[in-house]
Amino acid sequence: PSTPTISLSSARGSICRYSTESSINGCTALLYRNHGNPSQVVQLESMELPSVGAKSVLVKLLAAPINPSDINMIQGTYAILPDLPAVGGNEGVAQILEVGSQVKTLRPGDWVIPRDAGLGTWRTAAVLAEDDVISLPNDIPLFSAATLGVNPCTAFRMLSDFEELKPGDTVIQNAANSGVGQAIIQIAAARGIQTINVVRDRPDLTQLIDRLKAMGASHVIKEETLRQHEMKELFKTCPRPKLALNGVGGKSATELLRHLQVGGSIVTYGGMAKQPVTVPVSALIFKNVKVKGFWVTQWKRTHSQDEGALRGMLDELCSLIRQGKLTAPACSEVGLQDFRKALDTAMQPFSSAKQVLVM
Amino acid sequence: PSTPTISLSSARGSICRYSTESSINGCTALLYRNHGNPSQVVQLESMELPSVGAKSVLVKLLAAPINPSDINMIQGTYAILPDLPAVGGNEGVAQILEVGSQVKTLRPGDWVIPRDAGLGTWRTAAVLAEDDVISLPNDIPLFSAATLGVNPCTAFRMLSDFEELKPGDTVIQNAANSGVGQAIIQIAAARGIQTINVVRDRPDLTQLIDRLKAMGASHVIKEETLRQHEMKELFKTCPRPKLALNGVGGKSATELLRHLQVGGSIVTYGGMAKQPVTVPVSALIFKNVKVKGFWVTQWKRTHSQDEGALRGMLDELCSLIRQGKLTAPACSEVGLQDFRKALDTAMQPFSSAKQVLVM
Repeated sequence: PSTPTISLSSARGSICRYSTESSINGCTALLYRNHGNPSQVVQLESMELPSVGAKSVLVKLLAAPINPSDINMIQGTYAILPDLPAVGGNEGVAQILEVGSQVKTLRPGDWVIPRDAGLGTWRTAAVLAEDDVISLPNDIPLFSAATLGVNPCTAFRMLSDFEELKPGDTVIQNAANSGVGQAIIQIAAARGIQTINVVRDRPDLTQLIDRLKAMGASHVIKEETLRQHEMKELFKTCPRPKLALNGVGGKSATELLRHLQVGGSIVTYGGMAKQPVTVPVSALIFKNVKVKGFWVTQWKRTHSQDEGALRGMLDELCSLIRQGKLTAPACSEVGLQDFRKALDTAMQPFSSAKQVLVM
Repeated sequence: PSTPTISLSSARGSICRYSTESSINGCTALLYRNHGNPSQVVQLESMELPSVGAKSVLVKLLAAPINPSDINMIQGTYAILPDLPAVGGNEGVAQILEVGSQVKTLRPGDWVIPRDAGLGTWRTAAVLAEDDVISLPNDIPLFSAATLGVNPCTAFRMLSDFEELKPGDTVIQNAANSGVGQAIIQIAAARGIQTINVVRDRPDLTQLIDRLKAMGASHVIKEETLRQHEMKELFKTCPRPKLALNGVGGKSATELLRHLQVGGSIVTYGGMAKQPVTVPVSALIFKNVKVKGFWVTQWKRTHSQDEGALRGMLDELCSLIRQGKLTAPACSEVGLQDFRKALDTAMQPFSSAKQVLVM
């Protein structure tokens, strides 16, 4: 099939044409012109690149994951949607090839990740505004860099911004084997915070429990256990959680919050079960439970003028990565041309490894 | 039937016997020895009173309402339950008759109300610890004083502690005709805050709307209207609410929170519908809605060492009462001996007037 050459501006309108010529003037990208089933609407196409302007940079994408929110964005069901046509992908790591004359903070060779959602990372190269990206040290593993901006940042903020957690305190979470869940286990362990990790029952449960415990999980339990007497025994070994982190919704969320301390918080960052969070009135009034949500994209936008906030978080996360305390989730490397299979795999409910496009 | 004379200590253990003799050594009280249906388990009985100790006061109860939480406490379904036997009633106004030798803040003639739940106010007289009560000016109407400690305090705190509300901002609430609801309308109006008040449909709806608007309600709507196009028209006249106050739960709460501003809060203080609060995951993540609860008893306990907090609130509320900006809900005066009928009336779902025992 022919791959027509098209030109488009980024969903965020940050690409402008300038008169100087860049060393690369085209790229291939995973583009969609309509919302729908990802493996049907996404196509591999050749695209022109604009010239590198004074405040722009030319980057070569190195690796970009396929996240659930990328899928929802293509399906048209996500909270923010790009103008179409759009390049898929919101996360990934790129290397700077060329910088414009007025670019101050970035140099060729630097690794960068997007500052915000909507950049369109599933492509071989891009011309971006300097302000669209933030640099990362390039001494961390490629897959860690490619998956740093969303899940570990979500985990980091949820462990930092809702309850004051001291070493020895407990956090309970569902979806413990998800990207966010694994980051929560590791960041909490690095801070001396105990975690109770709820996973769905599955054939390889024993291996999963072993794997999450090796990451630092204090306890790994099945959803059914939340309703059983075993919980009483468990709470002889650790205090009741101050914080519950919910990536599922529905019954699972209600079960989590039943175990919270008086005055604790449940923070929702995902809704895999596609069911609302149901809160008993008595938990609100008499247990003073607080029910909130977290969206890392909103956090980044709210803190876009506070350079130190994002930089400080990335520095801490990279330090954990270098110490071996924070590893990327299991990743499957996929070439750009194999995108259809990768999109379908990413949409499986028990997808074992994150699909990462490597350019 | 005989009314046996019994002696009991208060549910909160604050009554002690001292050697001096008080001017009154008995009272009649509405007592219950078991949890159950209020009009069956509550009895009018004669009780001995302890002597007035050095740090105690002898009070004559003037008026005490029958609140929903009093009913739940007798039924045994409330979050805090007294030791049995117990005197019913948690709210009311009393007049000091006699003070102990070391009492510093209270004098005979003063009006006082309980500082905390559990005092047992449905009685003609009581010996109480000085710290169990707080004085009120006696230039406000009797029914305002008798009903000040729970509902207006709940309304005051919910309008003060959850969102920063400026004149012109909007608050939405259900159960708008309840005791708390009416206090919310009036306190909000005094602060220049607009209110959208949701009531259940009923035969006398027009009169109810007129009455709530006369109190200061900006808008009064039926529950069904929350789901209708009219809301769009309404939001042309006022900003979307920062704060939703929920005394109902269930669908009604979900409908309220659908209309909140991004980042707004819904605060639950009651659950008349006996159904949980159901929150869409997207409202938590993408609208950053916060879901919390409020219990005035807990607030009073948390602030029990902060004399100024309770005193300041009561002063402000009494000032509004004196200015005619905060009136008591419609009250039905009932003699202590007519308690059975009063209890049954208080349990009707559309009880039109608050039952107040007047001694």
